[in-house]
Amino acid sequence: MTVPEIDRSQGVTAAAGFRAAGVAAGIKTNGKPDLTLVVNDGPVTAAAGVFTRNKVKAAPVLWSKQVLTTGRLKAAVLNSGGANACTGPEGFQDSHATAEKVADVLGIGAIDVAVCSTGLIGERLPMDAIRSGIDLAAKELARSADASLAAATGVMTTDTRPKLAALTAPGGWTVGGFAKGAGMCAPNMATMLSVVTTDAVVDSATADAALRAAVDATFNRLDVDGGTSTNDTVLLLVSGASGVEVDQASFTEHLTTLCADLVAQLQADAEGVTKHVTITVRGAATDAEAVATARTVAVDNLCKTAFFASDPNWGRIAMAVGNAPTEFDQSKLDITINGVTVCRAGGRGEDRSVADLSGRDILVEIDLHAGDGVGTILTTDLSHAYVEENSAYSS
Amino acid sequence: MTVPEIDRSQGVTAAAGFRAAGVAAGIKTNGKPDLTLVVNDGPVTAAAGVFTRNKVKAAPVLWSKQVLTTGRLKAAVLNSGGANACTGPEGFQDSHATAEKVADVLGIGAIDVAVCSTGLIGERLPMDAIRSGIDLAAKELARSADASLAAATGVMTTDTRPKLAALTAPGGWTVGGFAKGAGMCAPNMATMLSVVTTDAVVDSATADAALRAAVDATFNRLDVDGGTSTNDTVLLLVSGASGVEVDQASFTEHLTTLCADLVAQLQADAEGVTKHVTITVRGAATDAEAVATARTVAVDNLCKTAFFASDPNWGRIAMAVGNAPTEFDQSKLDITINGVTVCRAGGRGEDRSVADLSGRDILVEIDLHAGDGVGTILTTDLSHAYVEENSAYSS
Repeated sequence: MTVPEIDRSQGVTAAAGFRAAGVAAGIKTNGKPDLTLVVNDGPVTAAAGVFTRNKVKAAPVLWSKQVLTTGRLKAAVLNSGGANACTGPEGFQDSHATAEKVADVLGIGAIDVAVCSTGLIGERLPMDAIRSGIDLAAKELARSADASLAAATGVMTTDTRPKLAALTAPGGWTVGGFAKGAGMCAPNMATMLSVVTTDAVVDSATADAALRAAVDATFNRLDVDGGTSTNDTVLLLVSGASGVEVDQASFTEHLTTLCADLVAQLQADAEGVTKHVTITVRGAATDAEAVATARTVAVDNLCKTAFFASDPNWGRIAMAVGNAPTEFDQSKLDITINGVTVCRAGGRGEDRSVADLSGRDILVEIDLHAGDGVGTILTTDLSHAYVEENSAYSS
Repeated sequence: MTVPEIDRSQGVTAAAGFRAAGVAAGIKTNGKPDLTLVVNDGPVTAAAGVFTRNKVKAAPVLWSKQVLTTGRLKAAVLNSGGANACTGPEGFQDSHATAEKVADVLGIGAIDVAVCSTGLIGERLPMDAIRSGIDLAAKELARSADASLAAATGVMTTDTRPKLAALTAPGGWTVGGFAKGAGMCAPNMATMLSVVTTDAVVDSATADAALRAAVDATFNRLDVDGGTSTNDTVLLLVSGASGVEVDQASFTEHLTTLCADLVAQLQADAEGVTKHVTITVRGAATDAEAVATARTVAVDNLCKTAFFASDPNWGRIAMAVGNAPTEFDQSKLDITINGVTVCRAGGRGEDRSVADLSGRDILVEIDLHAGDGVGTILTTDLSHAYVEENSAYSS
């Protein structure tokens, strides 16, 4: 079958039935865009969300989980410049008030409005700025490439560029969206937010199942530094405006393709990144253990500093694999880096100097020879710039 | 009761019945000391060992675990300059041959000789250098402060100074030892080795139980970067030469004190360290969950870079706590940094600017209010120097 082309100039308004805006509301003190509004004009308003598994959940996460129990959303409002996490009952009231303000302006109910926030933990939001920003955003709502770009820009924190993409699937329906941050994985501002919209005709149950499958295969496979923020949220809004009914398999497939592209953009813009590292584990007892093993390597600082150094240091990788929650026979372990099997049968393979890691992309392939489980994690290196960005100021 | 004084000018030969030496055997290409020999002259030869839990175990670990099933040791030989890990059956033969050489020189059996190695993973050891180094070390065996220092020096890798300590307990028996590396926690050379000797009269079972308790309370509570090397080993050799019979409780207590001092020296010399961070968790359901929670904070790179920046960024700590494998109510979470409760009842407490983190020591106290479990982990910050040391060359 034909693979639909990804268009990174389109985003959350590529699908019919959606308008969006991104504005500078004055939440950030530097005057940069900090508030995004996405509106679903229907005809249907099915929706799904996936939220952080962190036990410390931000107020907007608690709010949005609650409203999504209905399986529908007519709007999502997102702010950067403050996470509204660890802000107590007052913080929850602020999220509620934010939804009420959007509801007032759009003539809908607050229960139809999801709220997302990103920024410093532990500070209340400037609600006057939030309210006036919502007024401003409502006036600028549009369906255009500019509106998609503005929506993707309003949620940026330490992101150096907006991340948006869209594709039109065979049959004529479209899915598009934006993302910010660096995955379920604690970038500087400690949050990954994404809103994806579609004009396919799918019900809430299909949307929910498809979103969970897509997130598990994409956002959850990017691991920059092992953390999971208090605010991570991925929302899927369905307008049905294309009139095209789509089965779950096809919908999940194209949604996953779209999410994978957003994740590639997150990886490329991760803090201090100089290397894009892909870690694939084969031969684990199960797929879950393969993913867990890949994740153990991805978060190991000795491996990450070796990647930064373009150093094919397979001993550090073997050390990390030995700490993973999976069983294997160390005398069967193979490790291949950029095509060179530097560790074979648990010992030295080809000379490490043959492996060329000088480029941007590093592919680590690990075979445990203990089963059929396969899994991949995308990660980055640990560079001086990472330390600099995360220690230079409070965030 | 009186607390015995720690003497850091004494080490592995402080206890009667032990001789040691450390020499430059030519294993390292830079001519620095790289081989240490410790000999137990008895009258008893009880011994115990604690080894890495990494599933990838170095050849010397496999050898030493095997010989320690007898509960006795007459000597330990340790080399830096090569880990002899991921070296296959040939690597195991090298460890065996190393023990045989020591046995020949000392007139004992190879089964009485433990072997430890530290250095780069995946390379065979230069066995000629090992053998000639053992000959040299055997000639230099002595019981003196100089011998203790030489023994502590022979195992150094990226350590900037030797780490040794001894104490004499009430009753007149002595325990002393050395350590290298940065804990069960993957320093640059990825290994922590320690040998502790005592002239107390205790049997193998008591030695084993005491060592496990002491290591769990000390070495296992230092976590620099979350890893566990392929070679980590702590050995306890018992000569009984003082003639003083010691009960298990007293023995464990003083052994733990000695190990805690060695761990403090490891923390102070961890790679790139600019902060000594103590993380204490209270109010967890169990002590184990308290330790696991403290460890989650200790390995979080966002927390570690904040410590480096002297930044009382409690939001990052709350984020890390929320990812820990323990249950709690986020509305009860308290976080105190250097005496200032910056997070109270899950929200903002005293102003973060009041917390002074400019000094070397940072104490983070977390109360989950979910039980009586308490636990502490010692860790370090994540500095530019850490990245530099771990990326500047292959190790």
